[in-house]
Amino acid sequence: MANTLCLSFAELVQALGPQIDAALVARTELGEGCPPRFREAMRYSLLAPGKRLRPMLVLLAAEACGGTIEAALPAACAVEMVHAYSLIHDDLPAMDNDDLRRGRPACHKAFDEALAILAGDALLTLAFEVLAGEVQPPAVAAACCAALAAAAGACNMVGGQADDMEAERGSGDRVQGSGFSGQESQIGTFSTEIPPSLEALESIHRRKTGAMIQVSLQLGAMVAGATAEQRAALDVYGRRIGLAFQITDDLLDVRSNQAAMGKQVGKDARRGKLTFPGLLGIEPSVQRAEQSIVAACQALASFGSQAEDLQTLARYILDRNH
Amino acid sequence: MANTLCLSFAELVQALGPQIDAALVARTELGEGCPPRFREAMRYSLLAPGKRLRPMLVLLAAEACGGTIEAALPAACAVEMVHAYSLIHDDLPAMDNDDLRRGRPACHKAFDEALAILAGDALLTLAFEVLAGEVQPPAVAAACCAALAAAAGACNMVGGQADDMEAERGSGDRVQGSGFSGQESQIGTFSTEIPPSLEALESIHRRKTGAMIQVSLQLGAMVAGATAEQRAALDVYGRRIGLAFQITDDLLDVRSNQAAMGKQVGKDARRGKLTFPGLLGIEPSVQRAEQSIVAACQALASFGSQAEDLQTLARYILDRNH
Repeated sequence: MANTLCLSFAELVQALGPQIDAALVARTELGEGCPPRFREAMRYSLLAPGKRLRPMLVLLAAEACGGTIEAALPAACAVEMVHAYSLIHDDLPAMDNDDLRRGRPACHKAFDEALAILAGDALLTLAFEVLAGEVQPPAVAAACCAALAAAAGACNMVGGQADDMEAERGSGDRVQGSGFSGQESQIGTFSTEIPPSLEALESIHRRKTGAMIQVSLQLGAMVAGATAEQRAALDVYGRRIGLAFQITDDLLDVRSNQAAMGKQVGKDARRGKLTFPGLLGIEPSVQRAEQSIVAACQALASFGSQAEDLQTLARYILDRNH
Repeated sequence: MANTLCLSFAELVQALGPQIDAALVARTELGEGCPPRFREAMRYSLLAPGKRLRPMLVLLAAEACGGTIEAALPAACAVEMVHAYSLIHDDLPAMDNDDLRRGRPACHKAFDEALAILAGDALLTLAFEVLAGEVQPPAVAAACCAALAAAAGACNMVGGQADDMEAERGSGDRVQGSGFSGQESQIGTFSTEIPPSLEALESIHRRKTGAMIQVSLQLGAMVAGATAEQRAALDVYGRRIGLAFQITDDLLDVRSNQAAMGKQVGKDARRGKLTFPGLLGIEPSVQRAEQSIVAACQALASFGSQAEDLQTLARYILDRNH
C-alpha cells in the first residue's frame, strides 16, 4: 500500500481487510475430523466484524521492511487467531463474564461454554499450525512460532490477564468504585505526579495487550527479512501504539454508549478495574495517548515513505477517541 | 535405555521419569511477567504425579531411531504440556466437571476456574515456545510445531473432545444409561458383528487420545532424524497402542475403585458416555486391546532390540488392566 498515495485508515481497511478475511476463511476449512458445529464456533468468533488491527500491523510492518503482503499473510492470520481465542476465553463466565462481543452474543452465548473453551483452544493451536507450516523458510517459521508463543504466553498476554483478574479481585492495586472522574484534579498530570499503581497498570497492559501488538510487528518484520535496526524501530513504535491503544480503550469505556461499542460499557469502572482515566483523570490520559502516538511516529523516521501506512494506523488509534 | 538389559516398565519410569520432571521444572521457571500464583497453577497440573506416558514415547521413539534422550527432551516436555493443558480444560465445570484429577483436587478446585482456564492456555502456548525455541535444527523445530498443532487441534484432539461432548449430550451416538454389562451377549464379539456406533467411538478416540500418542512418537522420530520407514512403523505402533490405551481406560473406569484411580469412577457409565465395554462388552473389549498390542509390537520388528523399551511400554498398557 505504501509508496503510492497516502491512504486513510478507512482506505487501508478497505484494501487489506478482504485479503485478511479471505486468508482466515481459507485456513478454517479444516476438513475431516473437525465437527461442523465446532468449526462454526471457531469461525463465528474469528470472522466477526472487526478492524483486524493486529494482522494489519503484520502486513504493514512487512511492507515497511520491503517484504510482500502475500508472504506475510500466514503470520497475519496467526495473530488474529490468537487475538480471537483470547477474546473468547476472556468473555467466559469465569473470566470477564461478558455476554456481548463486537455487537453480537459472545461465543459462549451463541454456542455454549464448553464449545467456546474448545474453540478458543483450537484457534490458539491453529495459529501455530499456520505459522509453522506456511512461513518460509522453515527457520524463520520456527523463530516466528517462538516469538508468538512468548508474546501470548505466561509472561505476557496470559500472565497479564491473570494479573488483571487478580487486581480486579482486590488483591492487587485497583481503583475503588467508579470514582475516576473525581480524581482528575487531585492527581494532576502524569508528568509531574505518577500514582504508585500506574506502574502496575502499565505492566499489566504491556503484557496483556502490548506484547501481541509488538509481536505482530516483529512477525511482519521477520517474514520480510528485516534488519536489526528495522526491528528495533518497530519495537519502539509497537510499544508506543500499544500504550496509546490501551489508554484510548479505557477512555472509550468511559465515553461511549453501549450501541456504539457493542459491549457493555462503563463496566470496567463499575467493577473498580484499574484504568488510565481512573488513575490519571480523563484529560491527562488523552494527553498521554497523544504523546505516545507522536513518539511512535518518530520511531519510524528511518523508514521514510515506506512506513506511511503505519503512521496512518497510529493516528487512527488516537482518532478512535473522538 | 535400549541395547542394555530389557527393563520393566517400572524400571523405565524410574530411569526416565526424573529426567522428564527435571526438564519440565526447568521450563516452567518463567521469570519476570508471570504472576507467582499463576506459575504455581501451571506447575500444579504439569508436575502432578503421573506416568509421563507421552514424553516417554517421545524419548523411546527417538532412541529407537538412533537419537539421544537429551535432544528429544524439549519435544517430550512439549507433549506433556499439551497433555496437562487438555486435562485442566477437560476437568472444568463446563466440560467434564471433574473435581479430582490424579488423586488431587483438579486445577480449578485447587485454584479457581479463571486461573485454571488461563493455566491451560499458558501450558499449550509454552509447548510451542519450547518446541520452536529448542529443537534443532530450526527446520525440524518448525516441522515439529506443525505436527504437534495438527495433532492437538480442531481436526484431532480438540475436535475429538468436542465430538465426545456432543455424543454425551445425546445428539450423536451414545450408550443409554449404564447398562453396558447387559449388552455383552446381544452384541457378540467385535469381529463378527460391529455395532454402527463403534466406528464413531473409534473416530472420537483416534482424535481425542490417539493423535497425541501418535505425534509423540513422530516428534521423537523427527528429532532423531528417522527414515520414512521408521516413521511409518512408529505410526502403526502408535495407532495400535492408542486404541488399546483407550479400551483399557474404559475398562478401568468400569473395574477400578475410586481410591485406585484417584478420580470419580463409573462416571462415564453413569453419564451414558460411549465406551468400548459399553458397546462391545467387557471380554471382547479385553480381547480387542490384546490384539492391538500384539499388532503394535509386530510393527516394531524392523527396529530389532532398539525398540525393546517401546515393546515394554506397549505391554504395560495392557497390564494396566489387571
